[in-house]
Amino acid sequence: MMTNLFRPVIALIAILVIVPASAQDSDPLPAWNDGPTKQAIVDFVVKVTEPESGDYVPPQDRVATFDNDGTLWLEQPMYVQLAFALDRVKELAPEHPEWKNKQPFKAALDGDMKALAGSGEKGVAELVMATHAGMSPAEFQTIVSDWLATAKDERFERGYTNLVYRPMLELLAYLRSRGFTTYIVSGGGIEFVRNFSGPVYGIPPAQVVGSSIKTKYEDLDGEPTLIRLPEMNFIDDKDGKPIGINQHIGQRPIAAFGNSDGDYQMLDWTTSGEGPRLGLIVHHTDAEREYAYDRDSTFGRLDKALDAAPDKGWIVVDMKNDWKEVFPPKE
Amino acid sequence: MMTNLFRPVIALIAILVIVPASAQDSDPLPAWNDGPTKQAIVDFVVKVTEPESGDYVPPQDRVATFDNDGTLWLEQPMYVQLAFALDRVKELAPEHPEWKNKQPFKAALDGDMKALAGSGEKGVAELVMATHAGMSPAEFQTIVSDWLATAKDERFERGYTNLVYRPMLELLAYLRSRGFTTYIVSGGGIEFVRNFSGPVYGIPPAQVVGSSIKTKYEDLDGEPTLIRLPEMNFIDDKDGKPIGINQHIGQRPIAAFGNSDGDYQMLDWTTSGEGPRLGLIVHHTDAEREYAYDRDSTFGRLDKALDAAPDKGWIVVDMKNDWKEVFPPKE
Repeated sequence: MMTNLFRPVIALIAILVIVPASAQDSDPLPAWNDGPTKQAIVDFVVKVTEPESGDYVPPQDRVATFDNDGTLWLEQPMYVQLAFALDRVKELAPEHPEWKNKQPFKAALDGDMKALAGSGEKGVAELVMATHAGMSPAEFQTIVSDWLATAKDERFERGYTNLVYRPMLELLAYLRSRGFTTYIVSGGGIEFVRNFSGPVYGIPPAQVVGSSIKTKYEDLDGEPTLIRLPEMNFIDDKDGKPIGINQHIGQRPIAAFGNSDGDYQMLDWTTSGEGPRLGLIVHHTDAEREYAYDRDSTFGRLDKALDAAPDKGWIVVDMKNDWKEVFPPKE
Repeated sequence: MMTNLFRPVIALIAILVIVPASAQDSDPLPAWNDGPTKQAIVDFVVKVTEPESGDYVPPQDRVATFDNDGTLWLEQPMYVQLAFALDRVKELAPEHPEWKNKQPFKAALDGDMKALAGSGEKGVAELVMATHAGMSPAEFQTIVSDWLATAKDERFERGYTNLVYRPMLELLAYLRSRGFTTYIVSGGGIEFVRNFSGPVYGIPPAQVVGSSIKTKYEDLDGEPTLIRLPEMNFIDDKDGKPIGINQHIGQRPIAAFGNSDGDYQMLDWTTSGEGPRLGLIVHHTDAEREYAYDRDSTFGRLDKALDAAPDKGWIVVDMKNDWKEVFPPKE
């Protein structure tokens, strides 16, 4: 009697089990062209997620880290956060008349990119301190949100959060659908990236690792407040990436995704671990649909990591040939 | 035909839906005695999780932070991590003959707790540097695991990971079952706590915030390695707790749980936010089953936060009367 009663239930359960299985067979990465790159990604994901596989990795160890600039969204003609800082300098200039004659602010105000580049990392750090500090993290979020809502990339005539790479969005979703936890590990500011990582990448604030300035806690007339200080706390680039990952995540990733020499150490540390590992470099080879740059680029220089890739077994994505689409379609 | 076929399925679905509902009605906190404390916790959880409630908080904002020492496990007669450091000093002493005549090492070797307390925070920091640095994070994890597997608390004759508070384990599980993400925010070492937070509290390494020493990245003959350095990086106590939460989690918690003045700022920052908030202090009032201490204690001093609790609306748990059980039962 019970058996008969539950036969349809068993049939339904069978259907429920079959549905995800057939969904698995459909293409999880439609914006990627078929070929060895896509195949290598899928092969890795399949082998670490199939319990019968000798390379099975339990879900709690499926940690994947993604660089942001040039890996998840565009970084030319300059880092988006630098464009933000330059706009902030212009906005704050009336309160700082001295900036007219003081580098790197003068270069920022004049749009003199050559002089700005000449001011080096120190100059950029000065710009960041002057434009990113002196407010609470919540106030900073409002400033970033307001800017991202209106700022547009000149060449593509689109807001920056639309200039994210569709194939990488698919890859993030594909990995998560297979039990991975996805993190951003960016040389950019942790609070800047957190502003859009949720809605744009599906990555919550706690899963963003990045560079940071110091923060101070204050009790302002009984109102506890955090204030962002003009003092560097941590630079999440090069050596800083594995250090930041260890500090923040506390586990070595099994997969890492980058596009520049700033990602070398993250890729190397990730793929040097025992068991199955995936390292992937997005090589910008598509001047027509996006940009073509590597060894000589000011932003996102890719040289040492490109040379090391074959030996290290890192996949190099040829954007021009491996990506069917680059950006999400215009609405 | 279809309708008939699926009627049992619908019945089954109904059962499946009803089961969790009736589980909700059963007591989620059986190790807590009924009374205003338990009721206040349940009322808070119900109001922030019921979609019809005016105080509803979406799951992504249900962030709850827990202090560790004295809140999740015992901290008397000394912090567990200090007991670990003292045992490490003894183990490493043969390599450091100079320690016999040098404080705070001499005090550690002699078991002279008074002299050790006299060496202050600086002395304890020196002990930590000498015993927690000079190896990779992975090697440190092995050292901690080996120690926790054998070290025993003298009074209770149990390993430390058994001396966790059963009511708090229930609370962690209850919050998670209601869509909260639970974090540890400890003055203790982040890597020390990560060693057992997964199996003991169900909290993965990435959800542990704590104090830390600096780490360096090195390429040792082609083998990328992290090395723990004898240099303080961040002290996650007092002001450091909201700063650490902001850095690590990137969101203000809606609920915070502590037991000492070291948690004051975390509690204050959490409960000063808009919308429904919960702040809770575990008051150690049970000399018989655990310990009774507050204003005069060397470890876990509770003074300023105890005075502030009524005004701030923080719940004060009276361990003796609010907890039906303290530790998990002996096997």
